[in-house]
Order: sequence, then C-alpha cells, then structure tokens
Amino acid sequence: MHFVLTIVIVLLASKIAGQISIRLGQPSVLGKIIAGILLGPALLGWIQPSELITEFSEIGVLLLMFLAGLETDVKSLNQNMKSAVAIAVAGVIVPILLGWAGGVWFGLTTTEAIFLGLVLAATSVSISVQVLRELGWLNSREGAALLGAAVLDDIIVIILIAVAMGFFTGESTNLGLLLGGQVAFFALIFVLGRWLVPYFVHAFARFKITEPIVTAAIIIAFAFAWGADFFGVSGIIGTYFAGIALARTEWAHQIEDKVSPIAYGIFVPFFFINIGLPISFDGVGDQIWFIVIFCIIAVISKWIGCGLGARLTGFNTKSSIGIGAGMISRGEVALILASMGLGAGLLPQSHYTSIIIVVIFSTLITPPLLKMVFGKRDEHSA
Amino acid sequence: MHFVLTIVIVLLASKIAGQISIRLGQPSVLGKIIAGILLGPALLGWIQPSELITEFSEIGVLLLMFLAGLETDVKSLNQNMKSAVAIAVAGVIVPILLGWAGGVWFGLTTTEAIFLGLVLAATSVSISVQVLRELGWLNSREGAALLGAAVLDDIIVIILIAVAMGFFTGESTNLGLLLGGQVAFFALIFVLGRWLVPYFVHAFARFKITEPIVTAAIIIAFAFAWGADFFGVSGIIGTYFAGIALARTEWAHQIEDKVSPIAYGIFVPFFFINIGLPISFDGVGDQIWFIVIFCIIAVISKWIGCGLGARLTGFNTKSSIGIGAGMISRGEVALILASMGLGAGLLPQSHYTSIIIVVIFSTLITPPLLKMVFGKRDEHSA
Repeated sequence: MHFVLTIVIVLLASKIAGQISIRLGQPSVLGKIIAGILLGPALLGWIQPSELITEFSEIGVLLLMFLAGLETDVKSLNQNMKSAVAIAVAGVIVPILLGWAGGVWFGLTTTEAIFLGLVLAATSVSISVQVLRELGWLNSREGAALLGAAVLDDIIVIILIAVAMGFFTGESTNLGLLLGGQVAFFALIFVLGRWLVPYFVHAFARFKITEPIVTAAIIIAFAFAWGADFFGVSGIIGTYFAGIALARTEWAHQIEDKVSPIAYGIFVPFFFINIGLPISFDGVGDQIWFIVIFCIIAVISKWIGCGLGARLTGFNTKSSIGIGAGMISRGEVALILASMGLGAGLLPQSHYTSIIIVVIFSTLITPPLLKMVFGKRDEHSA
Repeated sequence: MHFVLTIVIVLLASKIAGQISIRLGQPSVLGKIIAGILLGPALLGWIQPSELITEFSEIGVLLLMFLAGLETDVKSLNQNMKSAVAIAVAGVIVPILLGWAGGVWFGLTTTEAIFLGLVLAATSVSISVQVLRELGWLNSREGAALLGAAVLDDIIVIILIAVAMGFFTGESTNLGLLLGGQVAFFALIFVLGRWLVPYFVHAFARFKITEPIVTAAIIIAFAFAWGADFFGVSGIIGTYFAGIALARTEWAHQIEDKVSPIAYGIFVPFFFINIGLPISFDGVGDQIWFIVIFCIIAVISKWIGCGLGARLTGFNTKSSIGIGAGMISRGEVALILASMGLGAGLLPQSHYTSIIIVVIFSTLITPPLLKMVFGKRDEHSA
C-alpha cells in the first residue's frame, strides 16, 4: 500500500503545482518540476527515488512522446527537415565546444571536459513538447522543426557518446554495428508502421475484449520503444514514431482520447516529479561558480546554436529564438548520460551533484522561456 | 527498457488469451488467468514475478473494484443487505469447518488446519465482478448481493485472521483497536464520500491542467485504498467505496469512461496474469490427493455455504447457485493470507505449493461456473 500513497502524493502535488503555475502565468510543467524538487530528498523528503517511480516516470515520457507522435503533422515534419538538421547539428556542436572550454577552465581533464560537453549536447524535447502543446504551438512549423531536431539530436548524441566512451575507456565500440542498428531500426519502423501497425490494430479492433484499440496502441508503442532501445536509439523515439504510424489510421482520434487519461492521469505526473528528485544541495556552496557558469553555458549554448540553425534555414528571428529556447531543456536524457559517465569514470564524482543541478536548471528554465517567446497561440490563427 | 517489454508481453498475452477464451464460449477472464500460468516460471518462464508486476497487479485490482463501485446501484445494495450478511457468514463458517476437517484428515496440526480453513474463507470478488460485468449481470440483484457479501466477507476474515494469529502466535492482538479502526474507516468514508469527495472533484474540475477530473478520481480512489489499509480493511474495499461515492456525482459517467482505458488498457491485465505466476508444480505428485480433496473442499464449501445463505434469504435456486459459484474464487486475498500464514509458521511449508494450486484452481473454476449458471444476460430484460 506504500506505493498507492506515493501515487496520491505525486498526483496531488503535480496537479496542484501545475495549477498554481498556470495561475502565475507560467506553463503548468514548471510548477510540476518544482514540486518534484520540493517533495524530493533534497528538501521535504516526502518522496524517495525508487524503481517504481523511475518506471512510472519512464512510461510517462514514453506516452508523452507517443501522444506527440499522434499529433505530429508528418508533412510539416518533412518540409522542415532541412531546418531540423541545421538545428540539431549546431545544437550539438556549440554545447560540446562551450562545455569543453568551461570544463577545462574549471580544471577538469580534457576527457572529462569533452564528456561534460557531450552531456550538455543532449536535448530532452519532452518538456518542450508538453509546454508547446499547452501553449497551442505543437502543431506549428516551429513545433515540427523542434521535434525533428530533437529526434536527430538524440541519434547524433548517442553515436558521439558511444564513440567517446569507446575512445576514452579504451574499449572498442563497434561503430558500424551501432550505425547499422540505427539504420535498421528506422527502416524497420518505416515498414512496420506502414503495413503491420494498421493490420494489427484492425485485428484487435474485432476482439470482443475490454478496451481492444487502446490496448493495441499501447502494445505497438511499447514494442517500438523496446525495439528502439534494442537497436541503439532512445525509447522515446520509438513511441514517437509509433504515434506517427497510428496517426494515419482511422482510430487515431480514439487512441488519443483514451491514451490521454492513461498518460496524464497517472504516468506523466511521475515524469515531471521525477526530474527534480535526484537534486541535492550538498556541497553546493563550494562549487557555486561552477554551477552558475555552467547554467549559463547550458542555456546559451543550445539557445544560440539551435537558434542560429533555425535562423539560417528560413525561420524569422522570433521563431528562431523560440526554437532555440525549446531545445535548452536537457531533462532525463542528460541525467542518464551523466550517470553513465560517472560509472565509466568520465565525469568527476566531485562535480556530479553540480552537473545534476545544471541539467535540472536547464529543464526548469525552458517552460518560462518558451512561454515568454511564443506566448499563448490563438489556434484559429494557425 | 526491460519492464516495457514485460508490458508488451502481458498485454498481448492477456488480450489474445481473453479473445480465445471468448471464442471458446468462456468468459475472457478464464483465458487471461491461464495465460499467466503458461507465461509464468512454472511453465514457459517468459515472465518472472517482480515488484513491478505485483504493484501493477495491485493497482489493477484496485481500479477494477473502483469501477465496480462506480457501477453499483446503492439502493440495490441496501435492499440486499440481509442476503449479503447471510451469504458472507455462511460462506465463512462452512469453509473453516471443512478446511479444518480436511486439514486434520491429512495430518496437519489443529492450528494449521484451522488457519487453512481461514485461508479458504477469504473471497476474492474481483474475478467474479469482471465475469458478471462481461455477462451483463453486475447490476442485477444477484450482483448486489454478491458485492455486499464480498465486502462483509473481507471484514469478517480480516478480524478472524487477526484473532487467530494473535491466539496461535501468542502475540496479543488488540481486537478492540482493530474493530474500532474498521468502524472508524466506514464512518470516515461515509462522511468523506458524502461531503468532501464531491467538493474535491468540483475544485479540480476548474483546474486548467491536463485531465483534471480523472486525476481527481484516481487521487480519491487511491487515498481511500490507503485509508482502508491503514484502518485494517483491504484496499479494494476502499476503492470500491470511492467508486460508490463518485457514482453520485455529475462526473460519474466521464470518470468511468476515462478510468476504463487506464484499468483495462494497462493495469488489470497484470492482475489476471499475476494470479497464475506463483504457481509451481514441484512435488505436486506427492500431494496429489491433498490437492484434489482441497480443490473439492474449496469449491463446495463456498458454493454450498454461500448458496444456502442466498437461498434462505429469498433468492431462487438458480440465483442461489450462481451467487454461491461467484463466491468460490479466492484469488489474491487468499494468496496474501497463505503467505502471511507461512511467515508466521501457521501453515506448513510442505503444503504451501499445494495450497497455492488450490487457491488458483478456485479462481480458475469461477468464470466458467458463473457463465454456466447465469449465461449471457439480455440487458433489456432487467
């Protein structure tokens, strides 16, 4: 019964914090992340990180990206592919350079500094997706460029991390295998998404069982997530493309209607709350300058890099600033990379807490920045 | 990503097994439980029991009883209270007597035999609820009597188990505290259900957050579950009464619509699959007679006891046979009691596997029996 109480606390806290955030003119996501920091071990200690919270949070972000896929306008995604590439590439290069320079400045080894740069190159688009949805911008050209860039960013960073870990730890990484796996994954989901997915849902739709269609959709989403992970891509990329595949079926609307309560009614609040849980303020005083400088690096490196990528490929200044802001959030991806780096000895233990704070800060600043730049969109003006 | 694959396997297996079951003229629940036995460690070994599966399963049964509460006709529940009491009391006495007699016959000590009888006195109504819903009988007089009896059975068995454990292990059980807690719980949910619950949902309904109403409903359901557990009642009784409380609000229909995909789309399949997971066939050959005799005792003790209780309080023979059959399933409640008894040394380790098999058998036989007695109900004839 202990976990049932955790569910009550997480749902209550995240929804109330979200509502307060909205009343203060901010996206609800901001309040939810702050609620996690407050409830976590660093402050109140009402919620302790646990395997269950991690799993619920993981399912939450998988469903979030699945819903984003369902809402994605594939034509718009294709039309903005050039921008997406420019945003992703510039948004990887600038953080690596600034992260490396900052790391060396603060006395880290070259290896550590480069790895730190790589951690800062990872984007977590799920936060921005949710904020853009709230503001009504998810289905805009800007939203499409952002989603495309985030998918590419994930692929690029995973490859670079694999190369770096292989190079620095001396273990050989089979880069051909990794790249081959990624190519195989995208080829596979293209084929499966086009032919098997509609057939599968169609077969399930005739079942006389409870909730056949939403169950079929969840099976597809999670199978794609597992496949993505298996082939060396993030699980969220898998559910995102599962959403895109299902968006073309006749059940798209029904699936969205029924996955929404599953996502927002139970799992997604765990994702937002979970972001703040690993924070700790122990020894922060000693590294306050490191934290301040790296918070600035984290924000401006993506903002400038991605903003420039957008501006140079046809977006106007306001949209470019907004797209850059939307790529700042590092969230769960950077947290995973940081703990991988720590395990492999590529990030110094002494700076780990500070890096976590920087990552969480970048996630926290994204919702208000997006709101500031884009504002609430009048859906009818689209 | 490992658990994501488990979700895919559980959903796929339970829904396909459910569909096969329906095609063979059986309630889908039967196929789902069998799927769990097949996939579990005893046979295929594709799914291993884990904390996550247990939690998902627990949430599943909590939501199942919550939905049952939402659909319950309180007037009908009150009208059938006399029958419910008779069914529950007779359904506790007969299994204890037969279980005790059978245990002594097979050479158990008196203590072990009585505790075994107590395990057999626990009803798990969730399986029957789902079967009756599938057959269209949940909202009948028979369904109301069954639900009322199951709630009372839970209360009686918890009290008896507490008394027995205190008596046999020599630790003093504060019976007054337990009874007082149960009374306090029912008083509390009556007051909260009547006044706080509608107010709480009303407050949430005005929130501008995602899925406010279904989230409020889940918060209430799980808070009631935790409260029930805290005051010494089963969690499912808590969510059941949360459902009853919400059924009276204007949002009842919307809540049912949105909790249904959460329940059946992800958590409930884990509940059905999880029932079969603890089964093991090691050393079954040595105790085959114990298993056979106790399977018979498990079935006829509830069937006769509860059926008699129903018959003597105004139900006709067919309905009484059906109600008796619906109370046979022991499911998760008996499994929990058995493992408690094992831990306290009140059940012999040597017979534990056999007892698990008996409990699962009683759960497995209930769906086809209910289908046989009641058949599919024409909703319009009600």
